[in-house]
Amino acid sequence: MRIPLDRQSAIPLYQQIKTYLRQGILSGSLAADTRLPASRQLAQDLGVNRITVENAYAELEAEGLIFSRLGSGTYVLPPDPLLPLPKNDPGTPWPLWQQSIVDKTLRSGLLDERRKSSRHPQPISFASGIADANLFPAEDFRKVLQTVMRRDGIAALGYGERNGYAPLRASITHILASQGLQTRPENILITSGSQQALSLVSQLLLKPGDIILVESPTHSGALDLFRALGFKVIGIPVDGQGMQVDALEKLLQQHHPKLIYTIPNFHNPTGTCLNGPRRRHLLVLADRYNVPILEDDFVGDLRYEGRTQPALKALDPGGRVIHVSTFSKMLMPGLRVGFLVAEGPVYDCLVNFKRVNDLATSTLVQRALEAYVTVGRYQAHLRRSCQIFRRRRDAMLSAIRCHLPAGVRFDPPQGGLFIWLQLPEKLDSEKLLPLAREEGVDFAPGNGFFPDGTGGRNWLRLNFVAQAPDQIDEGIKKLGKAVKRLLASHK
Amino acid sequence: MRIPLDRQSAIPLYQQIKTYLRQGILSGSLAADTRLPASRQLAQDLGVNRITVENAYAELEAEGLIFSRLGSGTYVLPPDPLLPLPKNDPGTPWPLWQQSIVDKTLRSGLLDERRKSSRHPQPISFASGIADANLFPAEDFRKVLQTVMRRDGIAALGYGERNGYAPLRASITHILASQGLQTRPENILITSGSQQALSLVSQLLLKPGDIILVESPTHSGALDLFRALGFKVIGIPVDGQGMQVDALEKLLQQHHPKLIYTIPNFHNPTGTCLNGPRRRHLLVLADRYNVPILEDDFVGDLRYEGRTQPALKALDPGGRVIHVSTFSKMLMPGLRVGFLVAEGPVYDCLVNFKRVNDLATSTLVQRALEAYVTVGRYQAHLRRSCQIFRRRRDAMLSAIRCHLPAGVRFDPPQGGLFIWLQLPEKLDSEKLLPLAREEGVDFAPGNGFFPDGTGGRNWLRLNFVAQAPDQIDEGIKKLGKAVKRLLASHK
Repeated sequence: MRIPLDRQSAIPLYQQIKTYLRQGILSGSLAADTRLPASRQLAQDLGVNRITVENAYAELEAEGLIFSRLGSGTYVLPPDPLLPLPKNDPGTPWPLWQQSIVDKTLRSGLLDERRKSSRHPQPISFASGIADANLFPAEDFRKVLQTVMRRDGIAALGYGERNGYAPLRASITHILASQGLQTRPENILITSGSQQALSLVSQLLLKPGDIILVESPTHSGALDLFRALGFKVIGIPVDGQGMQVDALEKLLQQHHPKLIYTIPNFHNPTGTCLNGPRRRHLLVLADRYNVPILEDDFVGDLRYEGRTQPALKALDPGGRVIHVSTFSKMLMPGLRVGFLVAEGPVYDCLVNFKRVNDLATSTLVQRALEAYVTVGRYQAHLRRSCQIFRRRRDAMLSAIRCHLPAGVRFDPPQGGLFIWLQLPEKLDSEKLLPLAREEGVDFAPGNGFFPDGTGGRNWLRLNFVAQAPDQIDEGIKKLGKAVKRLLASHK
Repeated sequence: MRIPLDRQSAIPLYQQIKTYLRQGILSGSLAADTRLPASRQLAQDLGVNRITVENAYAELEAEGLIFSRLGSGTYVLPPDPLLPLPKNDPGTPWPLWQQSIVDKTLRSGLLDERRKSSRHPQPISFASGIADANLFPAEDFRKVLQTVMRRDGIAALGYGERNGYAPLRASITHILASQGLQTRPENILITSGSQQALSLVSQLLLKPGDIILVESPTHSGALDLFRALGFKVIGIPVDGQGMQVDALEKLLQQHHPKLIYTIPNFHNPTGTCLNGPRRRHLLVLADRYNVPILEDDFVGDLRYEGRTQPALKALDPGGRVIHVSTFSKMLMPGLRVGFLVAEGPVYDCLVNFKRVNDLATSTLVQRALEAYVTVGRYQAHLRRSCQIFRRRRDAMLSAIRCHLPAGVRFDPPQGGLFIWLQLPEKLDSEKLLPLAREEGVDFAPGNGFFPDGTGGRNWLRLNFVAQAPDQIDEGIKKLGKAVKRLLASHK
């Protein structure tokens, strides 16, 4: 035990020991039943006389904070509720450097505070960015984990290869090929979720103050990241066919961005897909202006109808596009396993940058995922998910038509997770939110998805895969009530 | 399946489909036995006539690349080894932005290349920074994982709280208190290993070009990180009592650093501990010059003898020190769970910054660790580890005295993992390395631990906990042979 002692102090050493232990016990950091070191051991650790420690222990025992069991040791007692608790902050002011820290992610922090203030105990939530947790194959995965731990033992708990567990990279190659993107295991880097992939790529390619182009609106988690890293974020407008690539060239000339971040498939939050000609045009422009493309394909395969579009990466003549995806949305968010596909010098830099950032992603989880996610199983899971999610989307579309006023507008999405809903012009989704929460339903207000923080006032995002159909109907009914209340307040 | 099609192209669509699938099969990305989509499905996905897909499939089948099983589907065949493999790079040059990428971590990359070139098939390695993998309690941990998956089910696979799984943060508080550091669960942030904690703290507090003070020598993984992030790294000299704090004030005045990174306990690579008066002096100076301290306590509790010193964090009057530690070194590196302790505004910023970087560390692993690491179990594991490691240290000290020439110098460490060994002045440990590898032993040359890349030529770091005592003796004997060969070459 490393207790801080001040040998220059006028306070006797035994009392310093006593005060230190006393404070720990009263604050609860030294929990009841914790065994304290034997007095001889602690004396040796601290370089003091054994009597010094024994005196400290004796006083603590007299205060009823610890007790000695003969031949067994000295243990912490549960603190008496009548004893005064030590204060957390003894009045010392924070150092200046702490006082001047600016939290660049504060905006989202406030958002979360506001979210917590929901009055309804169990709202039906359409706010999240992930699928229904109850669809995750937890029991199957438990068995796989067991098999892997039995099979690999110690090896499952080592650091592993720096670009990720090789058999998992091979599996990902096969899954990507079965979805229409051909690559090689040596071009794949396993990351801690797709969020880490976005973080590594953008940090490698930009420095604070550099400009990144994103769709406007776009994924709020990416916006939070880019802002926290100090980048200037410029929006490219989006319509029903995805990013307005016609508007891109002017932005490229004007801003000289270091990166274009795009979600071409089932865009977050709008649910649109970039059409084929725009995909090719985007690649041509990126090449002409020498700007890398970061393609976030978070749910590219969750298509319920209509014609597929190739991933931008599948159109890449070589080294133009960095493709990021994840198993989190469809399988298990808490596993935190995503990946990126890249080639050329940037791939090696990303591998090294990942290593200096956190060494590796848990090898145990990578091994378990590899054992679980065969191509066949992935395809089966995808088919099943598409069936379930299509029904949920249809349930939400019906519910919206049934329960929301006619002034509400939306494009029915052909896949993905989200419906992007436009309220009548005068309604503000930020103002709708507290009313909706009172009714017992939750959504993501549109404003948080805009890079300049000004757009989307009368928009909101609904996740249609997170709830079963009856809950969807119930939730949209509640949303309808909230909208009517807000409309009434405007009259 | 999202196959890229060019509808403007003169190449017929069926042939584009065929070419795309053919390339995937020949390159191996479409693995044997992968089931291709039904022709009707693929036609629908791609928005083409079903005949188009059937024509493509027919030609691929005629080439012997796929086969149809009636009523079951179309499957990929193993590629004929006589067919020509498609090339990875069809001659397209990398875009300019790729050509100009500078890999700031390249130095360590080269080091790894050199490491791979070892000629001995199974060298006895004293080079690593971690403990003996065979001591990891893999079987116990397997059982705990099962229990947790059965107990928590789906909840074990969600995102979890943003600062980490609350019961694990409580456990860490109790473990820290039992070691002499009192804090609260709400001041702990779980990270993906201590490396991520170093990355988050330094990125939050510094921008590229800012100055960070570190011990010289110091942990090479931290140096790689700070360089990759573009910081200017300035070294503070170290002696047998740790950082020479007397030299610090001048450096603070001269360089106005944004952060002091220090390993006060069983320093990496030197194995020294900062003495008590220097700890207090360091805190006073950091406060006077308004500089935060990042304390890396990676093995602070692995003491085999002598008097303990309090963690710098235990001396912190409030918000001055950010304390980083890990379970990786003593338990399981591959789990990637570390933590930091901080308070004040910087704590909230770190929590948010962690979230935008990778959302969360695997909750499954956090839950399993919490179930495994009770205070009692941790203390028992620590006692057992200390016993084993002390014996290994003693074995290495004896072996060095026995097998290495008298000109070799070192301070016997009182704990930790490392012996820092000085060769006779004229010997270069970088030159010793290939000879040692030929003999079948591996170590970390001193040069890689110095911020300016020039010191430590005649030093090397030996990890004494990674091998059993007989292997230690054998390995040091081999090292002795290599040293003698190098000495002979100088005559």
